[in-house]
Amino acid sequence: VALERIEGDAGRMSHPHVFPPLSETRVAVVGLGLMGGSLAAALSVRRACAEVIGVARRQAVLNEARGRGWICAGGTDTADGVREAQLVILATPPRVILEQIATMGPMLAPGAVLMDLGSTKQLITEAMQALPEHVHPVGGHPMCGKEQAGLSAATPDLFVGRPFVLTPLDRTPIGALQLVHELVEAVGARPLIMDPIVHDRRVAWTSHAPHLAAIALVQAVVAEGERDPGVLELIAGGFRDTTRLAASDVTMMLDMFLTNREPLLHAAQQFQAELLDLCSLLEKNDESALRRRLVEVSRRRREVS
Amino acid sequence: VALERIEGDAGRMSHPHVFPPLSETRVAVVGLGLMGGSLAAALSVRRACAEVIGVARRQAVLNEARGRGWICAGGTDTADGVREAQLVILATPPRVILEQIATMGPMLAPGAVLMDLGSTKQLITEAMQALPEHVHPVGGHPMCGKEQAGLSAATPDLFVGRPFVLTPLDRTPIGALQLVHELVEAVGARPLIMDPIVHDRRVAWTSHAPHLAAIALVQAVVAEGERDPGVLELIAGGFRDTTRLAASDVTMMLDMFLTNREPLLHAAQQFQAELLDLCSLLEKNDESALRRRLVEVSRRRREVS
Repeated sequence: VALERIEGDAGRMSHPHVFPPLSETRVAVVGLGLMGGSLAAALSVRRACAEVIGVARRQAVLNEARGRGWICAGGTDTADGVREAQLVILATPPRVILEQIATMGPMLAPGAVLMDLGSTKQLITEAMQALPEHVHPVGGHPMCGKEQAGLSAATPDLFVGRPFVLTPLDRTPIGALQLVHELVEAVGARPLIMDPIVHDRRVAWTSHAPHLAAIALVQAVVAEGERDPGVLELIAGGFRDTTRLAASDVTMMLDMFLTNREPLLHAAQQFQAELLDLCSLLEKNDESALRRRLVEVSRRRREVS
Repeated sequence: VALERIEGDAGRMSHPHVFPPLSETRVAVVGLGLMGGSLAAALSVRRACAEVIGVARRQAVLNEARGRGWICAGGTDTADGVREAQLVILATPPRVILEQIATMGPMLAPGAVLMDLGSTKQLITEAMQALPEHVHPVGGHPMCGKEQAGLSAATPDLFVGRPFVLTPLDRTPIGALQLVHELVEAVGARPLIMDPIVHDRRVAWTSHAPHLAAIALVQAVVAEGERDPGVLELIAGGFRDTTRLAASDVTMMLDMFLTNREPLLHAAQQFQAELLDLCSLLEKNDESALRRRLVEVSRRRREVS
């Protein structure tokens, strides 16, 4: 969806507040893990905004981020860190984001834009509805996870070429959406504007169900490894790739699953139905049907690579 | 299993034929796709054997292999290609290997060692039992697939650090096993000596079930993409990794599945049971059980990476 279409949306509220361009914006990033650290890094390395302030629970993390030149100031107190920012980005796990949204309103300056980077969007944008009027919320989800977590895994190039979903609320002013849209482009990502419910249904298929499949596969092989330890010697690249997602940060996965249960259960059911169908072809030794299936799947998979 | 243990095996037949060391061996590779091409490349680049002869169906493939210096001679006629080789390696898909074993005996020189690179071993080693006495068969399976097929994807480094299973038959002389063991080490792989039935059961878990899961996942997302094309925009690295195996060569996958049906169906069943179990925890919103599960799986997955 092009930003022009959004601008043409007659239902969207116009707002007297003038948002500065990103280059003049003071950005506060709350949470300096893989996502927050990488965003701070990308903004700083690319000199995309006026200033990056970091908020983290541990001083050591702040020191490391400052040492790398990824934040110019920072602290462990959220209220202090976000007070003077024109754009505040919540880069904590989804359920921490929900808690922070509930308490953060009064800490924010008038006209501040509040974006999050959580992997589900419906519950988070619902919680954003309750923010005080002087704050302008918008949901965000950069799709660029990797299995390492924390600032040590962060990199300024994390977002390059990756989809970065933005889920504006009805109350989000055009200027606020423009600001975060500019940020997404500034860090090299591909902005996609989307309804939060649609987003959650889609990531259930493309991200959460693959996580679940990877976890189940590791569990099955670990259980077999207890009956026959030799099975672990035959783990090679194919198994590693297929199960890479199972090594993701546990709290992130748990929050992702628990804040997107219905869509994920639906996608998982369809996945199981496909699996059962394949097994039944195999059981019947139906070579021609199996070959047609594999030819089609292999072709479709190559299209997305 | 160390080779010493095999040498100490009193039941194993000693054989009057003296096998040359690999450096003095003329090797014929039948099939110059990803595996055969890479093996020819590794042997030639590392100057591990006396000569590499290639056999392929298409002259263009032979020309390319010769152009790269990966074979020193070759042809499209199998009988011609293997006639003077002391070690013949079948690098075709598993069911082609079965056909070739059935007809190849009379083409081979007395004392020739015949190895295959097929991804399943029980049916292939059973077929090898029927070879004439002057031929010395041994099963092989290098575990280093990738989704590209053909000589253009081949590389001399394909085997480096990867498991390479050897499944000797009761009739395999020690000297023949030593020769292929030397070859495995010469191309940089890790030799693992294993019973064919045990091998097939293990790869059902670590390779074939992951292929099946990847295929089912692609099918599910493709079907959803027909209902909602936007889902495909949200395909990112996680989905790509989890489903990489679904882009593998179709004939290779089909042969792998159809020559290992029982073990694969068993592994797939266990995988589905784990998946259902995870879904039921999610349905019950059982956060603490789900967290314990994810902590354990994430830890185990990191151990094998």
